[in-house]
Amino acid sequence: MTKIKTAKNSSKKDLIIQKGAGLFRTKGFMAASMRDLADEVGVEAPSLYNHIGSKGEILQVICFKVAAEFTAQLEETEKENWNAATKIEALIRFHISMMANNFDEVFVANNDWKYMDEPFLTNFLNQRRSYEKKMMAIIEAGIKKKEFKNIHPYVAVLTLLSAVRGLEYWHKSKKSISAKVLEDDMIKHLITGLIK
Amino acid sequence: MTKIKTAKNSSKKDLIIQKGAGLFRTKGFMAASMRDLADEVGVEAPSLYNHIGSKGEILQVICFKVAAEFTAQLEETEKENWNAATKIEALIRFHISMMANNFDEVFVANNDWKYMDEPFLTNFLNQRRSYEKKMMAIIEAGIKKKEFKNIHPYVAVLTLLSAVRGLEYWHKSKKSISAKVLEDDMIKHLITGLIK
Repeated sequence: MTKIKTAKNSSKKDLIIQKGAGLFRTKGFMAASMRDLADEVGVEAPSLYNHIGSKGEILQVICFKVAAEFTAQLEETEKENWNAATKIEALIRFHISMMANNFDEVFVANNDWKYMDEPFLTNFLNQRRSYEKKMMAIIEAGIKKKEFKNIHPYVAVLTLLSAVRGLEYWHKSKKSISAKVLEDDMIKHLITGLIK
Repeated sequence: MTKIKTAKNSSKKDLIIQKGAGLFRTKGFMAASMRDLADEVGVEAPSLYNHIGSKGEILQVICFKVAAEFTAQLEETEKENWNAATKIEALIRFHISMMANNFDEVFVANNDWKYMDEPFLTNFLNQRRSYEKKMMAIIEAGIKKKEFKNIHPYVAVLTLLSAVRGLEYWHKSKKSISAKVLEDDMIKHLITGLIK
């Protein structure tokens, strides 16, 4: 069997996950096969199974990795002694940077999570719900301190997260806007819309 | 063959389109069959073809109907002697009301347009591009008049349209937020974020 070549600092499993994310994003999880993935990695299909149990396991690893990164950033942000606007700005900037730097994985976690099996599916949805609740709590605190306008926290979170998710279309489009302009202008729009 | 029952003011073809939109939204265009649709409409599958040529034709009708409604609203808004903020607010309120009142059709036009055949696909994408350009022109005019902050017009349009598209998730969630609160608060967030 062909030996899998690995990038520096990247284990064979990491490489499979990375190539899997790219494949699922372009082809869709359902349409992508382990044979396609083997071609991407440059090995025979059976040798993939030395490193990963199934296509579904790759999806689980991607979704839980992305969820863990967002949760870690949120927990760090919550601890900071910042006002609510600075906290929300930090979170939104992190979302934008994840979209810019880990696009394949974030796209797959956003679009293909529904194909996970139980108990992973429910666990993932609970993590997402908890993330939204914690973000709502930051916004509620900002409203109480009269830092933010009186906007329903759920509506604000929906607006913020939908806007950053829209960066999927920026990636697809051929617009020559730098990541920096995009991040700064989206932040300006979304944060000044929140503050009083 | 069973005669198709029609709602008042709704031709048989209209009924098929309406039921088709609901079916495509819940099942997805690719997975939905003409047999499923016949069950929804309450007729035998072959009798559908008295009114519509194919599943693809239903998708085309839905996508072009939605595009025409958005374009008509945009053209009316452009003619008004309003400032840029009022124009953008009117457009965004229209998007939100379309999401609230024609959810199935808007959802299908947003998600399943890619399954249209040519020349419909290219025509639809051109209409969408033209819509975005006209919205960008309104924002550019607002920036020139110092009514809006200096935000890249493409980024502003992406933020606005992504936020309203996020209402897909509101529909899916069980949140008990009234359409009125949602519309007013989202407008507050998005419009005050734009104006100086």
